[in-house]
Amino acid sequence: MNKGYCVIMAGGIGSRFWPLSRSAKPKQFIDALGIGKTFIQMTYERFARFIPDENFLVVTGEAYKSLVLEQLPMLKEEQVLTEPCRRNTAPCIAYATFRIAKDDPEAVMIVTPSDHYIQQEDRFEEVMRHALAHARTHPDLVTVGIRPTYPATGYGYIQKEDTGELISPVMAFKEKPDLKTAVGFLNAGSFVWNSGMFVWSVAAIRHALESFVPDIARTFDGLAPYYHTDEEPARVNAAYETCQSISIDYAVMEKAKNSVVIDGDFGWSDIGTWGSLYEHLDKDSSLNARIGGDVLYFDTRNTLAKEELPGKLLVLAGLDDYVVADTKDVLLVCPKKEEAELKQLIETVLKKRSDIR
Amino acid sequence: MNKGYCVIMAGGIGSRFWPLSRSAKPKQFIDALGIGKTFIQMTYERFARFIPDENFLVVTGEAYKSLVLEQLPMLKEEQVLTEPCRRNTAPCIAYATFRIAKDDPEAVMIVTPSDHYIQQEDRFEEVMRHALAHARTHPDLVTVGIRPTYPATGYGYIQKEDTGELISPVMAFKEKPDLKTAVGFLNAGSFVWNSGMFVWSVAAIRHALESFVPDIARTFDGLAPYYHTDEEPARVNAAYETCQSISIDYAVMEKAKNSVVIDGDFGWSDIGTWGSLYEHLDKDSSLNARIGGDVLYFDTRNTLAKEELPGKLLVLAGLDDYVVADTKDVLLVCPKKEEAELKQLIETVLKKRSDIR
Repeated sequence: MNKGYCVIMAGGIGSRFWPLSRSAKPKQFIDALGIGKTFIQMTYERFARFIPDENFLVVTGEAYKSLVLEQLPMLKEEQVLTEPCRRNTAPCIAYATFRIAKDDPEAVMIVTPSDHYIQQEDRFEEVMRHALAHARTHPDLVTVGIRPTYPATGYGYIQKEDTGELISPVMAFKEKPDLKTAVGFLNAGSFVWNSGMFVWSVAAIRHALESFVPDIARTFDGLAPYYHTDEEPARVNAAYETCQSISIDYAVMEKAKNSVVIDGDFGWSDIGTWGSLYEHLDKDSSLNARIGGDVLYFDTRNTLAKEELPGKLLVLAGLDDYVVADTKDVLLVCPKKEEAELKQLIETVLKKRSDIR
Repeated sequence: MNKGYCVIMAGGIGSRFWPLSRSAKPKQFIDALGIGKTFIQMTYERFARFIPDENFLVVTGEAYKSLVLEQLPMLKEEQVLTEPCRRNTAPCIAYATFRIAKDDPEAVMIVTPSDHYIQQEDRFEEVMRHALAHARTHPDLVTVGIRPTYPATGYGYIQKEDTGELISPVMAFKEKPDLKTAVGFLNAGSFVWNSGMFVWSVAAIRHALESFVPDIARTFDGLAPYYHTDEEPARVNAAYETCQSISIDYAVMEKAKNSVVIDGDFGWSDIGTWGSLYEHLDKDSSLNARIGGDVLYFDTRNTLAKEELPGKLLVLAGLDDYVVADTKDVLLVCPKKEEAELKQLIETVLKKRSDIR
């Protein structure tokens, strides 16, 4: 029985956690939680419990290849696939799928983002092993769903059939809802968050790609002679230029009749904001959290302090519900609640100071 | 006619402007205003308009001698007098007085703190020249008074006779008042702030010291044979150990019958707090001020940002009336208004982290 492959998608260049993350070191490569591990390292470790090292693939931008190899030194260079440009998840998954297919067409595989947070790793392993077992015996496309704990408006939802089983057929994929809709989803009980993690056999996803995005499937299938050769990077780069930019959800999952969802109850967050990072940190009696640095709070509550420089002292007074993020060359002090405004603010900053990207 | 001496007292080790100032670099040695000059450099320049370089003396702690010589390279090493311990202003002034007396007993001299701010330097020069002229022809002890512009509770006051002249006899010295008393002083019109600057002849202050603090006078008069010799530092250090710690105001000025005050209308501040520093800086349309760094404000008002690291970007959002002071190893974010609390806060910090003093 093959143990399965794990494809880690690590192409993100987002401004989340700016100024901690930069375009030269996006979120997946930073130790946002201050635990000595970056998100991609935590992702690898979660899967390395049941996936052998040689069965990992990381897909990332060319600029990040050396970062990946530095942070995951157990991987060989040929396990890091690079994209010359961003084309969303469908081309990325097609590339990984057809490359694995060349080596092991009977394989099952997991596809996962590189920058999420999981609370209960034992339960996570159980669920993922269950999904892999399902994929070995069923031609289904398994999405990992997460039981919602609050009416999130920042995640997509999946409506599932109410089978009472761990794995259920998908009824519909739903875009990020407004708050009222999200409350309805939460109350209905049959909606789960779309985690962006997928489990399937190579044969199943290959068939789905060929059915719904035949151009993309043909492109990466056609490159099979070049995988594991010196020509692979150049051929892949040329292929990417011709690909449409499209998500796997939109390209495949929403259209496929064999979409199923597995119920993930292991505590999950994409930690997409300073606020959600704060939620996952230990707090003191005034509900202040800190990552790094030495912080002294005076008349300060609900505030997240992140210091990148070892030993630097932060003295914070009279703040309530702020994020204070200090790096070598940028300091951010901002109300934590204003997520949307913060995102705009950061865009404004980056336009003014492109050197700080 | 001798041009007069200028004695700059630079022994302060205060925590004002912490974390910008440190015990290794107190306020007088920092460029708090971000204009490329430290307070002691500005002090020197104000007096160098009418005092020759060779007539300056700086009295400071041993630890700061090299800082003085670095920041005032026009001074010779023998112009920097060092104190082995802090004994307030009377011993400091006595040392400088008797050292000048050895060289030039007919001299007139100015004594000045090293860390004050003057707005109108031309007017300042006029007033100080007038005071020097008075000291040449009168045996008076001239204190420089400042016309109050608000009911300050952080300064001592001098009640003067209402002569209508630039120089008036002193009726009384008043300690730092409470607010109600300060309002009374302001309304009375005959009270001025005590700037801590003095002008007198060597003969006049010598006589006063001998009258009111004879032990101190005798001590430093007795060292006359050693001034300008290799033995001076050791002798002075031993003398300091025996001195009481006492201010010149308490030791001499409040007791002397020949105390007069000159009316200083040149715009003065001791800039003793971040708030008073803020008052002296240019503001943008949201009344934000910055010193150094590159600051982007969003929904922020009345806030002072001080960045020590060149080129560092500060992004400040949702702040009203704060000080944000960032250095290499300390970041302070604190409501600007809470001056008293801030002082206590800093004391607390320094107890916890003596390495940051």
